[in-house]
Amino acid sequence: MGWGDLGVFGEPSKETPNLDQMAAEGMLFLDFYTANPLCSPSRAALLTGRLPVRNGFYTTNAHARNAYTPQDIAGGIPDSELLLPELLKKAGYINKIIGKWHLGHRPQFHPLRHGFDEWFGSPNCHFGPFDNRAFPNIPVYRDWEMIGRYYEDFKIDLKTGEANLTQIYLQEALDFISKQQASQQPFFLYWAIDATHTPVYASKHFLGTSQRGLYGDAVREIDDSVGKILEHLQKLGISENTFVFFTSDNGAALISAPQQGGSNGPFLCGKQTTFEGGMRTPAILWWPGHIPGGWVSHQLGSVMDLFTTSLSLAGLQPPTDRQIDGIDLLPAILQGKLIDRPIFYYRGNEMMAVRVGLYKAHYWTWSNSWEEYNQGVDFCPGQNVSGVTTHTQEDHTTLPLLFHLGMDPGEKYPLSFASAEYQRVMQQIHFVVQQHRATMVPGEPQLNVCDKAIMNWSPPGCEKLGKCLTPPKPDPKKCFWPH
Amino acid sequence: MGWGDLGVFGEPSKETPNLDQMAAEGMLFLDFYTANPLCSPSRAALLTGRLPVRNGFYTTNAHARNAYTPQDIAGGIPDSELLLPELLKKAGYINKIIGKWHLGHRPQFHPLRHGFDEWFGSPNCHFGPFDNRAFPNIPVYRDWEMIGRYYEDFKIDLKTGEANLTQIYLQEALDFISKQQASQQPFFLYWAIDATHTPVYASKHFLGTSQRGLYGDAVREIDDSVGKILEHLQKLGISENTFVFFTSDNGAALISAPQQGGSNGPFLCGKQTTFEGGMRTPAILWWPGHIPGGWVSHQLGSVMDLFTTSLSLAGLQPPTDRQIDGIDLLPAILQGKLIDRPIFYYRGNEMMAVRVGLYKAHYWTWSNSWEEYNQGVDFCPGQNVSGVTTHTQEDHTTLPLLFHLGMDPGEKYPLSFASAEYQRVMQQIHFVVQQHRATMVPGEPQLNVCDKAIMNWSPPGCEKLGKCLTPPKPDPKKCFWPH
Repeated sequence: MGWGDLGVFGEPSKETPNLDQMAAEGMLFLDFYTANPLCSPSRAALLTGRLPVRNGFYTTNAHARNAYTPQDIAGGIPDSELLLPELLKKAGYINKIIGKWHLGHRPQFHPLRHGFDEWFGSPNCHFGPFDNRAFPNIPVYRDWEMIGRYYEDFKIDLKTGEANLTQIYLQEALDFISKQQASQQPFFLYWAIDATHTPVYASKHFLGTSQRGLYGDAVREIDDSVGKILEHLQKLGISENTFVFFTSDNGAALISAPQQGGSNGPFLCGKQTTFEGGMRTPAILWWPGHIPGGWVSHQLGSVMDLFTTSLSLAGLQPPTDRQIDGIDLLPAILQGKLIDRPIFYYRGNEMMAVRVGLYKAHYWTWSNSWEEYNQGVDFCPGQNVSGVTTHTQEDHTTLPLLFHLGMDPGEKYPLSFASAEYQRVMQQIHFVVQQHRATMVPGEPQLNVCDKAIMNWSPPGCEKLGKCLTPPKPDPKKCFWPH
Repeated sequence: MGWGDLGVFGEPSKETPNLDQMAAEGMLFLDFYTANPLCSPSRAALLTGRLPVRNGFYTTNAHARNAYTPQDIAGGIPDSELLLPELLKKAGYINKIIGKWHLGHRPQFHPLRHGFDEWFGSPNCHFGPFDNRAFPNIPVYRDWEMIGRYYEDFKIDLKTGEANLTQIYLQEALDFISKQQASQQPFFLYWAIDATHTPVYASKHFLGTSQRGLYGDAVREIDDSVGKILEHLQKLGISENTFVFFTSDNGAALISAPQQGGSNGPFLCGKQTTFEGGMRTPAILWWPGHIPGGWVSHQLGSVMDLFTTSLSLAGLQPPTDRQIDGIDLLPAILQGKLIDRPIFYYRGNEMMAVRVGLYKAHYWTWSNSWEEYNQGVDFCPGQNVSGVTTHTQEDHTTLPLLFHLGMDPGEKYPLSFASAEYQRVMQQIHFVVQQHRATMVPGEPQLNVCDKAIMNWSPPGCEKLGKCLTPPKPDPKKCFWPH
């Protein structure tokens, strides 16, 4: 979902009354970022509080490439990483993930091996339908074992766009919350629904209800579901004791627009890019009784901060044996403080850009290759900023492109290299970057090797269901990451 | 000011708390349009309820050109046009215009000859400073006579951007409202401030307060002023008896961005174009006691509707001897009805595009000429939709470019000509256009002739001030309208 998909962030048809209400009762973060312009690395960063380049969720197969966890990926979240639920356990939390895990689908990466107590959802994107010969359909797990597969047991009608998955995920959430409230145990719920990812779907009740097509229907259903979750917390009397944060794992995928893709509002480009449209995301905090309604924060925030802030809320300290990139947002939330901190925009292990205050410097620019672009793959449809949305990888490390995001949120007007402002700001930014680089210890890259033999042929539990499939012979290869 | 300049419409830094509050207490129009992508024709349409092509505020000097009223323009609002204040007089209203008139500066076009009882402001844009030899500085009038000139008596510091004009205009408004409330006379106040027009200015208190530069400072001052006007109405106890509407006369001028120009949010291009960024504008109605807060309307609206709606509020009928394009919005406002009506997008006397429901068809496309564009004049910076933001005038009348604005507010994905949807929708739109053309009687074009001799050399009242200047010899010529 993109920054511009919510009414409160500026979607022209304003179809998200529940999220808008959540903001009215809570706190809107206007400068909130993912740690990566696509799914897996962003989620790995959220759960580890660390940049993908540290936790291993990146590739070195080629320069500055986005990589994720399709079902032929060999890697996943390393055992050495400490995930938020692992740490929260120490404070007695019960942890559940509902929806897409995306940190690896092989047994050693299973979410219940990494701190979660319960899981309902799938390890990968709901791509398909597949024929179960060249590719198996993606499994859906309940806890340790699969209980079915997408398209087979969990229907998605690609013709009509109908699927009731968000309703199923919603009910799972409500049930879990009720159970936890009844047992008086603290809980962490990671509600990682996938409805706005292609292929986009919505349940029957929402189909055709949006001015925005099927994508809008999906947004409306998510909006409605968030409203129901908040209402449920209130009904159970635990809303003042529950910290709720809504955000997205990357900007809207403009390549799928307009039928299946959303809006990044006034920002440049979308998912897969390190322009604002790829990494600035909607972010709303709801915590009645602790913050008054209608607050707006200009704190630079990151999904990685949810790691550190959650630990802080649980009275825990972040690990001290490794670099943590997330900061504790509580001073910004409770006291309105503005914490000075940079935002780094990575593609693979290349730092493409950095934001310091209102300024953003691009050290590298790239949207995608000419080859892809000429085939119709466009991450910036209708947008073309000369020398900025480049189709060759442009090295600006000696003279970064500098933008003032306050005056120019769309990254359209680079500051003049000759200006005093450029000199002054770049001096400051270079210092920040130097510090960042000096302490950077990249993790072992996890997203380099792919093998069709390790796809979801025979996930645990497949025997009971008679849904085990025969994998092909092992054939590990370098994954191909085109952008 | 542009659609995207207000927090409630999606400006990323959300710096308009008063306008946002106005929307929260009132009604937000999401699909509201000017009648023209630039100033004079838009204002003429607002005050007459008629498209510029009917009321004469257009040019035929070249095809599909934008024209306005610089100080060498010979034309202005024809006597034959009935302006809103002229009509409101019949219901006992006292009418005041504060700010820019822009319907002609020669004596016959004076606002007090066209229904206004009071005027404080100027007839043209606050361009300058001029040397009073090649060009005179623009006069500022109080009622019938000038009381000074911009830059001479009403300072604008172009270096710092400081000018206290918005404060002066605000005080005028507050005083007028107080006076009217005291005398118990109904009033119409046309508060037509000019602070976000280049050269952009703000008063000292607001300078440097925005993340968005000088333009943002001006927006903040306007926002603050609107808040003060609404507060004043409440203090005087007349808020429930006063219909307040906030809108803009065109989209933000992107040519002046980022230093002096604003944001059109997710829309394509800006002022001067018939893309959404040029003509969709912020629109907020405030009318406590009559509409509950927080309403959002998807009614297609136009500045021309303010004419008809205002008459309706005053218990008056619109003129029946001429075509009126504005509709009465009260059913949409009070009963939430959706009135089916098209929106026409003109440039000169050419209908460039039409919106019917969620669909918009471009019959002609043009941003500006290659010649201008190559000189750096860009109405769509960073945006380029192939075949849409064209630099030659493209005739699509036989096969219009069709967009679904719900799914694609940015006009980036034209529908396939071969699709059933295209066929079905265009049939409907062609019918609407046919009807429109069948009843179209263009007015005599007023914006064809320019003459330096008729500039503001010696406005009425100049003698008393010793500010009369000697005009050059009359030399009427066709005005040159490059875009």
